[in-house]
Amino acid sequence: MSKIRAAVVGLGYWGPNLARNVSQASADYELVGLCDKDEKRLGRIGELYPQTKRYTDVDALLREGKPDLVCIATPVGAHHPLAKAALEAGAHVLCEKPLAATVAEAAELVELAHKKDRRLFVDHTFAYTGAVRAIRKAYVDRALGDLFYVDSVRINLGLFQPDVDVIWDLAPHDLSILSYVIGRRVVSVKATGSSHNPRGFADVAYLTVEYEGGLQAHLHLSWLSPVKVRRMIFSGTNSSLIYDDLEASEKLKIYDHGVTFDVADVEARKQVLVNYRRGDMRAPALDNREALTTELKDIAAALRGGPLPPAMGEDGLEVVRVLEAAGASLAKDGARITIS
Amino acid sequence: MSKIRAAVVGLGYWGPNLARNVSQASADYELVGLCDKDEKRLGRIGELYPQTKRYTDVDALLREGKPDLVCIATPVGAHHPLAKAALEAGAHVLCEKPLAATVAEAAELVELAHKKDRRLFVDHTFAYTGAVRAIRKAYVDRALGDLFYVDSVRINLGLFQPDVDVIWDLAPHDLSILSYVIGRRVVSVKATGSSHNPRGFADVAYLTVEYEGGLQAHLHLSWLSPVKVRRMIFSGTNSSLIYDDLEASEKLKIYDHGVTFDVADVEARKQVLVNYRRGDMRAPALDNREALTTELKDIAAALRGGPLPPAMGEDGLEVVRVLEAAGASLAKDGARITIS
Amino acid sequence: MSKIRAAVVGLGYWGPNLARNVSQASADYELVGLCDKDEKRLGRIGELYPQTKRYTDVDALLREGKPDLVCIATPVGAHHPLAKAALEAGAHVLCEKPLAATVAEAAELVELAHKKDRRLFVDHTFAYTGAVRAIRKAYVDRALGDLFYVDSVRINLGLFQPDVDVIWDLAPHDLSILSYVIGRRVVSVKATGSSHNPRGFADVAYLTVEYEGGLQAHLHLSWLSPVKVRRMIFSGTNSSLIYDDLEASEKLKIYDHGVTFDVADVEARKQVLVNYRRGDMRAPALDNREALTTELKDIAAALRGGPLPPAMGEDGLEVVRVLEAAGASLAKDGARITIS
Amino acid sequence: MSKIRAAVVGLGYWGPNLARNVSQASADYELVGLCDKDEKRLGRIGELYPQTKRYTDVDALLREGKPDLVCIATPVGAHHPLAKAALEAGAHVLCEKPLAATVAEAAELVELAHKKDRRLFVDHTFAYTGAVRAIRKAYVDRALGDLFYVDSVRINLGLFQPDVDVIWDLAPHDLSILSYVIGRRVVSVKATGSSHNPRGFADVAYLTVEYEGGLQAHLHLSWLSPVKVRRMIFSGTNSSLIYDDLEASEKLKIYDHGVTFDVADVEARKQVLVNYRRGDMRAPALDNREALTTELKDIAAALRGGPLPPAMGEDGLEVVRVLEAAGASLAKDGARITIS
Repeated sequence: MSKIRAAVVGLGYWGPNLARNVSQASADYELVGLCDKDEKRLGRIGELYPQTKRYTDVDALLREGKPDLVCIATPVGAHHPLAKAALEAGAHVLCEKPLAATVAEAAELVELAHKKDRRLFVDHTFAYTGAVRAIRKAYVDRALGDLFYVDSVRINLGLFQPDVDVIWDLAPHDLSILSYVIGRRVVSVKATGSSHNPRGFADVAYLTVEYEGGLQAHLHLSWLSPVKVRRMIFSGTNSSLIYDDLEASEKLKIYDHGVTFDVADVEARKQVLVNYRRGDMRAPALDNREALTTELKDIAAALRGGPLPPAMGEDGLEVVRVLEAAGASLAKDGARITIS
Repeated sequence: MSKIRAAVVGLGYWGPNLARNVSQASADYELVGLCDKDEKRLGRIGELYPQTKRYTDVDALLREGKPDLVCIATPVGAHHPLAKAALEAGAHVLCEKPLAATVAEAAELVELAHKKDRRLFVDHTFAYTGAVRAIRKAYVDRALGDLFYVDSVRINLGLFQPDVDVIWDLAPHDLSILSYVIGRRVVSVKATGSSHNPRGFADVAYLTVEYEGGLQAHLHLSWLSPVKVRRMIFSGTNSSLIYDDLEASEKLKIYDHGVTFDVADVEARKQVLVNYRRGDMRAPALDNREALTTELKDIAAALRGGPLPPAMGEDGLEVVRVLEAAGASLAKDGARITIS
Repeated sequence: MSKIRAAVVGLGYWGPNLARNVSQASADYELVGLCDKDEKRLGRIGELYPQTKRYTDVDALLREGKPDLVCIATPVGAHHPLAKAALEAGAHVLCEKPLAATVAEAAELVELAHKKDRRLFVDHTFAYTGAVRAIRKAYVDRALGDLFYVDSVRINLGLFQPDVDVIWDLAPHDLSILSYVIGRRVVSVKATGSSHNPRGFADVAYLTVEYEGGLQAHLHLSWLSPVKVRRMIFSGTNSSLIYDDLEASEKLKIYDHGVTFDVADVEARKQVLVNYRRGDMRAPALDNREALTTELKDIAAALRGGPLPPAMGEDGLEVVRVLEAAGASLAKDGARITIS
Repeated sequence: MSKIRAAVVGLGYWGPNLARNVSQASADYELVGLCDKDEKRLGRIGELYPQTKRYTDVDALLREGKPDLVCIATPVGAHHPLAKAALEAGAHVLCEKPLAATVAEAAELVELAHKKDRRLFVDHTFAYTGAVRAIRKAYVDRALGDLFYVDSVRINLGLFQPDVDVIWDLAPHDLSILSYVIGRRVVSVKATGSSHNPRGFADVAYLTVEYEGGLQAHLHLSWLSPVKVRRMIFSGTNSSLIYDDLEASEKLKIYDHGVTFDVADVEARKQVLVNYRRGDMRAPALDNREALTTELKDIAAALRGGPLPPAMGEDGLEVVRVLEAAGASLAKDGARITIS
């Protein structure tokens, strides 16, 4: 079976990880091109892959390198033109998240991919981690039961991004995890936030995201916390789960706790007996492989006719919809913005 | 100097702590009466204080016991009639928080105390802990600098309260701590929440509280979390602070971290340089005395002409105002409710 | 069924807990006497139990109070004369640990109890906690498999004891837990330690305790650690267990981890393949009742003809044997002291 | 200034880190050779350094590559012949720890380096970390005061080494840290341990190491612990310190705690008053640079006439002396082995 000719565009923070993983997955891929406008950066990374051609111009890459798959890891503003060019050149695309800077752009990419019959993958990396896959399993298998609510805290000191606010920087992680785990659409968003930097972007924000069926998720996002926290709570009727991504081991703790209500007289609403159950806690052993390794394997399988992986263009578009709605809510003092 | 004749009304969860502390503070107080409608409960606690008279009726207590100070630790619905009766009988009052079930009731009590020239103390216990006093010091001394924002997480599994929702149960702690630490008034409140119990009370809620000067505090309150968390973040320009009340030692961690912005060209908003400083962390040694011990000492001093302690009727009224506004916001899908 | 007439002798740190628990266990016990040489202390505690007679002299207590059970919670030096007097007066005894200051004294008490047909219980409190009972269950049920080794760290800052060294102060906890969990006798002890106080007692010590079957337990005991640690590791062939007594919840963590060895050529000892298994971690829900409550219930049952509880005079004697041997090893630069 | 021509011999676990750091330190070094007997491994690592020559034979490397510095990262058994060859060829040597498999071999290397006037550096990496440098500072500056004792726990599940026991595998870390921090010689060692693997090597061991001046350090070393722990306690008269190498931030916590003794009557040894002081805890900000980066910079400076770095051949020899003595103690049931 011939190898997938893959190229990486954008060699800032994330691109080198893509390049390394593509290169290591040599059974499936051949790294045929590296592209960055910054020649120094291109040289520094390129040196590690002496067999791979280097480009400062994406058109040259597409024309000469003829890649089957273009992995895009640039700032979000460049996603749309690059992905569009790649799709039009007949390549499949793996695009960093968020998929694009506006819903219109993201929707255009999704449509274009359909039209060209190319695959548009979105790099929702967390959906390929052992931890998030185990959360999805606990949800789908009904170990959690029905969800009461989800709370996520994703805070740290900096890094202030030059081009996006804290919502666009951090919320895509939570939104893509939730979309993958519960498989439901977002119905509405409310956002509050504040800005303490000269650019006037929000650097602290809180989102209340309502999903189909009434489930609420709440996100605390901040670049101004003295400590780094990556912690999600999934509170369910059968059991509850805490996912702390900074734990070296025991990232996931499933608490066999529960609350049930006995109502003797619903009319009167007086005779409600609350029963608490506190059972064992279990931290399941997790698949520790690097998420990108799994992701590239799944993508290769999809390109060879296998099932599609969990994060396609439509999923990326959904995330952008929520981000855009959150911005609208911020501008309206936290009003609920409905997503059609 | 004659002792303060104190009585405790309501011997459920908190009342016995009041009784024990009054009894131990024998240099300042004499425990002259215990009162509870439930005779069994009254007997069980009363047994520990053989010298103290027992009452099932508060009027009998006021008439016969002639207490100087009545400590009220009943469900919130009874605060108003009991405190009113005590003040009218000429006693000072120490009332459990929240001060009353409505702003109207709380305001009436504050006014009555003024008219009768009696002291109305509110039992904002946290304001008397070593940890919260150290936070106030760090704020007042400018160790924190200006505050960016405050975030509080106060969550656990249950205990569902029969008479109030999760906001009335848990938010008074945060609101009284914040009021004491920063000494500013609340300007507006937004609340979202959800209910998963047959009574229809909110059991998960998020509050965004804006203080004078634009400072925002955000509260996550829940009876449906698998784990108990009591954690406040005070993020400041000079340093930041984490207060974890469940830590046995090191409840307070002050991070000498900071962010500053160098703006080369404000017009262009392009040349913003973000500088991060990461210095030492310090966990100050804290006064470990039981808060109630300090509180009763401060109250005794006030009753003997000393300065008033930090939590008076007005402070309690302010908390009730915020709670009532939060309820109004909940009912209006999270709309901002301004507090005049 | 008539109640057991119980008395408490020694009202320092632990005695008041005994008194409170005896008093609360009113279905089984009547608290008929409190005894302490220090009249002030006796008065302060005695006040809480107005129905109970107070004694400064144990003979008067035994003569007048005629207790069925005497609970002894004095410094260790007084255990022997007090327990002896109580047994000779026909009472059963519950004695604080360590049972006596020497093997000779402890052995005499065990013998005397047999001769008088009275029960001599030793207050190995940990054997009645939910955590230690769960460890025993994990061991007995073979969840742990065979034990590789046990390591315990029991360290803190102070409290320096006036009458015993750090080994006599802290090791009884570990030794009684181990004796209860694994049910084996100690074969030999080695001890090293050092002293940094003017009395010359060891304030830091390490014990290596060998049990029947070759199992080794190692104890780190210290009054000179900046932090308090209470942590035991039970490393086993099937799974391993960490018991952290300072954890509020999740005191016990059972790791379904393992190591096995495949030996291709034992002669050569070269072809050893080591296989690691890393499975789930589980923190079982534990019985949270106060240990003394369980202990007094078990003792009452035993006095009424039920099975004997896990910590009898012989067990207390065994602990004293190990302590004495540890002292001998300390004196011989850590030489192995065999226990016959 | 001409670059130091450096080569790396042994490309197993640690060698690739050396190669990467030498390559990155391109201001000081030129990576002129990579050497490993295993051609596959050599190819895999060599690919990353296309400019660097590859050798399967060290003699060829020395002859053709003419390196100024040979970095040796092979199993310990090969250190002696390789370092000897390199020194005799006129190269300086940076040797992985432990320096050699026996005292005799290590001593021969130290002597040879002197004779040839070459530098023999030992790769005691921890001495170049920000954390250990901060510990040394706290000790040298007398922030800790005099040390009461040091305790280290270095345990994990595996990795069983094929050629050495758990002492040779793990103790070099502790011994080199201690040697660097306190700058004293070891006087004697006692070791106990046990073996649970078919090879019969110790896989659990405890060392008691006595330093000049009577200071005792105690090491718990294990390949059979369910959890990984890397934790040292330095207990001192002025303050105490905990170093937890697995903490992402706050690796070092300095506790301003203390114990002092007031002795009223030394003769009687009765009137000893123990005073406890519990002050702040401080976690200093640490230099987070990779230790190898610092180490290579210091080595380059030394080779250019600057001061020698903290870990030279003599330091490596000292560690091997302690390891050999520990083995002798193990064989003699834990007897104290004096180091001359």
